[in-house]
Amino acid sequence: MPCPYDLYLDNALVLTLEPGARPLFPGFVAVAQGRIAQVGEAPPELPRPAAREYLDAAGLLVLPGLVNTHCHAPMVWFRGLADDLSLKDWLTRLIFPAEGRWLTPQRVCLGARLAAAELIRAGITTVADGYFHEEEVRRALAEAGLRAVVAQGVVDFPAPGVPDPKDNLRVAREFMDAGADEPEGLLTSTLFCHSPYTCGPETLTAAKDLTRARGLPFFIHLAETQGEVAECRAKTGLTPARYLDRLGLLDEATVAVHAVWLEPEEVELLALRGVKVSHCPTSNCKLGSGVAPVPDLLAAGVTVGLGTDGAASHNRLDLFSDMALAARLHKVHRRDPTVLPAAQAVALATREGARVLGLEHRVGTLTPGKAADFICLNLRQPHLTPLFDPFSHLVYAARAADVVHVMVNGRWLMKDRRLLTLPWEGLAAAVREEARDLPAFLNRLEQEAKKE
Amino acid sequence: MPCPYDLYLDNALVLTLEPGARPLFPGFVAVAQGRIAQVGEAPPELPRPAAREYLDAAGLLVLPGLVNTHCHAPMVWFRGLADDLSLKDWLTRLIFPAEGRWLTPQRVCLGARLAAAELIRAGITTVADGYFHEEEVRRALAEAGLRAVVAQGVVDFPAPGVPDPKDNLRVAREFMDAGADEPEGLLTSTLFCHSPYTCGPETLTAAKDLTRARGLPFFIHLAETQGEVAECRAKTGLTPARYLDRLGLLDEATVAVHAVWLEPEEVELLALRGVKVSHCPTSNCKLGSGVAPVPDLLAAGVTVGLGTDGAASHNRLDLFSDMALAARLHKVHRRDPTVLPAAQAVALATREGARVLGLEHRVGTLTPGKAADFICLNLRQPHLTPLFDPFSHLVYAARAADVVHVMVNGRWLMKDRRLLTLPWEGLAAAVREEARDLPAFLNRLEQEAKKE
Repeated sequence: MPCPYDLYLDNALVLTLEPGARPLFPGFVAVAQGRIAQVGEAPPELPRPAAREYLDAAGLLVLPGLVNTHCHAPMVWFRGLADDLSLKDWLTRLIFPAEGRWLTPQRVCLGARLAAAELIRAGITTVADGYFHEEEVRRALAEAGLRAVVAQGVVDFPAPGVPDPKDNLRVAREFMDAGADEPEGLLTSTLFCHSPYTCGPETLTAAKDLTRARGLPFFIHLAETQGEVAECRAKTGLTPARYLDRLGLLDEATVAVHAVWLEPEEVELLALRGVKVSHCPTSNCKLGSGVAPVPDLLAAGVTVGLGTDGAASHNRLDLFSDMALAARLHKVHRRDPTVLPAAQAVALATREGARVLGLEHRVGTLTPGKAADFICLNLRQPHLTPLFDPFSHLVYAARAADVVHVMVNGRWLMKDRRLLTLPWEGLAAAVREEARDLPAFLNRLEQEAKKE
Repeated sequence: MPCPYDLYLDNALVLTLEPGARPLFPGFVAVAQGRIAQVGEAPPELPRPAAREYLDAAGLLVLPGLVNTHCHAPMVWFRGLADDLSLKDWLTRLIFPAEGRWLTPQRVCLGARLAAAELIRAGITTVADGYFHEEEVRRALAEAGLRAVVAQGVVDFPAPGVPDPKDNLRVAREFMDAGADEPEGLLTSTLFCHSPYTCGPETLTAAKDLTRARGLPFFIHLAETQGEVAECRAKTGLTPARYLDRLGLLDEATVAVHAVWLEPEEVELLALRGVKVSHCPTSNCKLGSGVAPVPDLLAAGVTVGLGTDGAASHNRLDLFSDMALAARLHKVHRRDPTVLPAAQAVALATREGARVLGLEHRVGTLTPGKAADFICLNLRQPHLTPLFDPFSHLVYAARAADVVHVMVNGRWLMKDRRLLTLPWEGLAAAVREEARDLPAFLNRLEQEAKKE
C-alpha cells in the first residue's frame, strides 16, 4: 500500500485563514504530492496516519505562507545606500545611476538570490516581483523554490537591458512567452508598466493588451505621490486613476501599486472595475509619500494585499513589519484604534494577497487541494508569551525571525531557520565582494557629472 | 601583574554614539571592573592586550545598549488580551478589572521577570519602569541584572497594593527610601504620577516635592490624547502642560511621557523648563492617540528618548520597532523623507534616552569610564547584506532578534541569544500556567457586572 502522505505535521496551533475559521488546536496538516491533503484537529491520543515524514509541531504556529504583492528583488543591492533623502535626490543621485551604470544581468541574478534568501527567512512564500533583466530574477527565484509572479519592467526611457525604449514591449513579450510553459506551476510571467508618468498612452494600452490576451495580471504604480497626481492632471486633465480608466486599463487583472492619493470617487471607481491594490505602507512612510485610504478601499470592497516594495525603500523584505505598520498607521491616521484589526491585517498578508495576484485557487489559505505553502513560527519565546490571540501576536508581537520552517509546494525551503535551497555563506561572500566598490563608483559618477 | 582587562572584544564594527563620531572598524572594546576601559580601532596584526576573556566579534555590530524610557513591565500579562478596542473599552472592560482583581504581588514579580527576559533579548539594557507593587519589579529587574529606573505608581484612586489612595504617597516614599542605598548603582528608585487627570493638584505637587528633595526623575503621562486635553481645559482652564507648569512641576528632572498634543508654545515651554520627553510611537499609533511633534521638540532643543510603553499597547518590549516606526512615522506625517534620519533615531534610543533618565554620565555612549552596557548584533544575515551604513541598518533593516550578546555593567546577560540570568524554560511554563484562566476570569467579572 503506498504511503498516503508525504508529510504529517501535528500538535500545532493552526490558522487556516479561511474566512471566519477559528484557530485549530491541537491542529494537524497532511501534505501529499505538493498539496494540502487534509487539515484539522487531532486529539493526541489518536494514532498518526502513515506518512513519509512526521513533524511534531508542539509550540509552533502554522499558517499560510505570506504573499508579497510588490517587490523589486534586485534592489537589495541598494539597501541602506541612500536613505533619508528627498525622492528626487534619491532617484537622480543614486538609484538611476546605480541601475543604469552598475547593474549587470549577473548582478540582477545575484541580487535576486540574496532577496530570495531574505524572503524565505521572513516567511514569504509567494512574491510578485517587477524589475529589469527579469529573466534573471525568474531564474533565481525558481532555483530558490519560491512561488512568484515575475514581471518584466516597461518604461518609455532607456532601462537596464533595454537601451532603446522602442524595444520595451518586445522584450516584455519575449519574457512572457519564454515563461509561459513553466512546468511546476510555481511561476507566472507577466509585465509591469512602471507608471502613468513614465509610460506614454500607447505603451500603456499595448502593454495591457499583451497581458489581457494571456489572462495575466497587469501591474502598475499608481498615485504614489501628490506630485504625480499634479503632473498627471497638468498633462492629461485627469487624475492618474481616471486617466488609466479612460485608456481602458482598469479591470480585475490590474494591480494598482501604492494607490495613496485617491479621491473618494476614485476609490469607488477601483471597486467598480474590480481593480486590486497592493498596499506598501513601509515604503510610503519612509519616502514620505502619504497614507493610502486602505480602510475606505476595504469598505468599498476592493481586494487589498500588502507589499514590501524594494529594499531601497523598505529596507527589508519583511511583511511582518508591513502587517504591523499597516495596523498601527491606519489607526493613528484615523484616530480610531478599531481600524484594521489584527485578523484583517493577517488576511491582507495571506488570503487577500493571493486574490490580488489571481492565485486564490492555489494559495492564501490552508485548504485541502491548495498547494502546500505554509510557515511555522516558534511561539515559545518571551515576546510571544502569554498567548491569548494568535492573530494579535502575528501582527503586534511576532517578528520575521520567529519563522522557523517554510514549505512551498510541498518542498521545505527552510528548516530550523537553515536555508535548504540556497548556499547562504557563498552567496553572502559574493554579494559583499561585489558591493564593496558601489559607493565609490557612484561618487565617481557624481563627480564626473558635476564636471560636465 | 594583575590582568588589566576583564574583557577584550575586537574585530567588530563599533558605534560609540558619541556625537559626530564615525564608525570604528576594526573596532575594539576593553572592559575592566564593570566599566569601559578603552574603545577604538585595532589593526588585526597588533597583539591583543592581556584580558580574562576574549571575544572575536568579526561580523558583529557593537553599540551602547538601548535605553527604554517608558515601560510598565508587568503588563506583559495582558499582551494580546485586548487589542483593536477603543481606549474606554480597553481600560474599563479589561485592563482595570485585570489589574484590580487578578494581579497579585507574586504575579507582578513573575510578569516583570518575563518582561526582563524580553527586554534583554531585544537589546535593552536600561529600562524606566512605572507600575504598582513596583518593589516586585525592582526585585525582578535586579535579579535579571538590568539597569533600571523603577518608579512606584501614584494615582488618586484605588490601585493594586494601594487600596486607599490616601496612602499613595506614603507607599511611594517607602518604596523610594528602601531603594535609596542600592549598592551596585544599577537601580534608581523614584515615583511615577500617572497623569494630570488621575492625580489631583495636591498629589501632583507633593509627589514632585518628594522626587525633587531626592534629586530623582519625576515621570508623568502628559497630553496623550485629545480627550485628555479637552478634559483638562474644562477642569482647569489650561492645557495639561500649562497646568503642570502652573503647579511648578516642569523642570529638568521631569519626564513627560507621550507629549502628543502640544501646541507650538507648549513645545517652547518644555524646552524653556528643560523638561525631557519620552516618545512612545508604537503605543500612540496602536491606541490611535496621535503623532507627537517630535521634529519640533528636537528643533526646540528638548531632549527626547524612546519608550515602548507596556506590552498591552505595543505589544512587545522592543525599541528596534520604535526606532523604525519613529523614523517612518514622522516622515509620512510631515511628508518629508529627510525628517528624523537614521543616525538621529539611533541616538534617541541610546544617548538621548540616557539623558532623559539623567543617566548620561553612566550610559548611552561607549566612552571610557562609563558603565560597560553594550549589545552585539549579528550582521551576517540576508536582511543586513550588503552593508553601507550601520545606522541605516539599525533603524530600517535590523530586528531585535539580531541581538546576539548583551552586557550590563560588565556582566553578560545574554550570550549567543541564551539568557544567562533568567531560567527561561521554567519562567515560561509558570507564566503559561498562571495566564491560562485569565480570559475566563475576566469574562466572569464582565457577566457579574452586567447582572448588577
